[in-house]
Amino acid sequence: MSVITIERKVLEKNDQVASRNRQLFRDQGIFALNLVSSPGAGKTSLLERSFQELQSSMKIAVIEGDVQTDLDAQRVARYGVPVIQIVTMGGCHLEAGLVEDALGKLNLNGVDLLFIENVGNLVCPAGYDLGEAVKVVILSTTEGDDKPLKYPAMFLNSSVLIVNKVDLMPYVNCDLNVLKGNALRVNPNLKIFETSCFTGAGISEWCEWLRRKDASAK
Amino acid sequence: MSVITIERKVLEKNDQVASRNRQLFRDQGIFALNLVSSPGAGKTSLLERSFQELQSSMKIAVIEGDVQTDLDAQRVARYGVPVIQIVTMGGCHLEAGLVEDALGKLNLNGVDLLFIENVGNLVCPAGYDLGEAVKVVILSTTEGDDKPLKYPAMFLNSSVLIVNKVDLMPYVNCDLNVLKGNALRVNPNLKIFETSCFTGAGISEWCEWLRRKDASAK
Repeated sequence: MSVITIERKVLEKNDQVASRNRQLFRDQGIFALNLVSSPGAGKTSLLERSFQELQSSMKIAVIEGDVQTDLDAQRVARYGVPVIQIVTMGGCHLEAGLVEDALGKLNLNGVDLLFIENVGNLVCPAGYDLGEAVKVVILSTTEGDDKPLKYPAMFLNSSVLIVNKVDLMPYVNCDLNVLKGNALRVNPNLKIFETSCFTGAGISEWCEWLRRKDASAK
Repeated sequence: MSVITIERKVLEKNDQVASRNRQLFRDQGIFALNLVSSPGAGKTSLLERSFQELQSSMKIAVIEGDVQTDLDAQRVARYGVPVIQIVTMGGCHLEAGLVEDALGKLNLNGVDLLFIENVGNLVCPAGYDLGEAVKVVILSTTEGDDKPLKYPAMFLNSSVLIVNKVDLMPYVNCDLNVLKGNALRVNPNLKIFETSCFTGAGISEWCEWLRRKDASAK
């Protein structure tokens, strides 16, 4: 039995569990998002900003994925948002089974939005469906405008691109139009938001989109 | 046969080839470095700065690793530095065998320094020895000071930490002392440099260290 055969079996098993997760989200009217990015692109900061804008009108829950530590779950818990931390102990991506286990520990009653924050990695999480409604890739301007071309799978498999840290544009070598052009070359269907979790720019547009998507998930 | 057994065999095979690469570097007096980081932390920019400082006195060669595109090899080639691009086609890390193949295509005659720029990924390349003398992890200040705790394997397996983009410190939420403290908590033996490829800060110290290490590799 070759490594490739085993990998295919692992992915098939993953997809079966992802389908179960997806059915659960549909049954309960939960809009689930899989947030993927490089380390430090701002996934957790985006969550914090989104809580501030949405918490009064929507019920939110979070599953945190990290190689090590529960630092991100601690940040989320400060907002009173129910959160389960998955520590992968070296694993480079979340899998549907880990998410299914975490769902069993979350009280999903009345939850509108579920954010699944993946391990910080712009390569490996691209291939693993978790059962989410949409995969959202976050790319910070500090990473450079060539990244969609260099890591295409993640941009191809995502429905939404959030270009974060736009407040740092004056200080970094990144052309926003080139970045967006490269992303759309890989995936012409990407919905793109431009945000700064530092200044709050673009957060309203992103949250308005979340509200609309959640309404259509009911 | 389980996935874990196959993974162990893959790593054993990798280590055998890495040993051959290491022997080749020793025989030819080449100081080889494996550069690892998240996407966009500044690996290629660090190479460009190092060329400018070292090229007049040392012979340098480069192996570029990327998931897709030869954009980085093109950047390196502009300096007249011999370079081979490895495109992993989705693969999340370099392996010793890929490096061995690339070495066969490089003219190593008289080469002092060999930079191997790994795929941008702060998780997977940690476990793969390429035969390098030292693994160098580059972390940009924009990624945040908690990253050594969240991605410990890479910091544990590296000998050198380069904290890059220190020019952006005034604009980002990153405490340099906390970052260095976290890194040294994971690996007390880390040699740390603080650099900016934009202003050139810290590049002389880094290049001086490279000169000394190369001299002792002869």
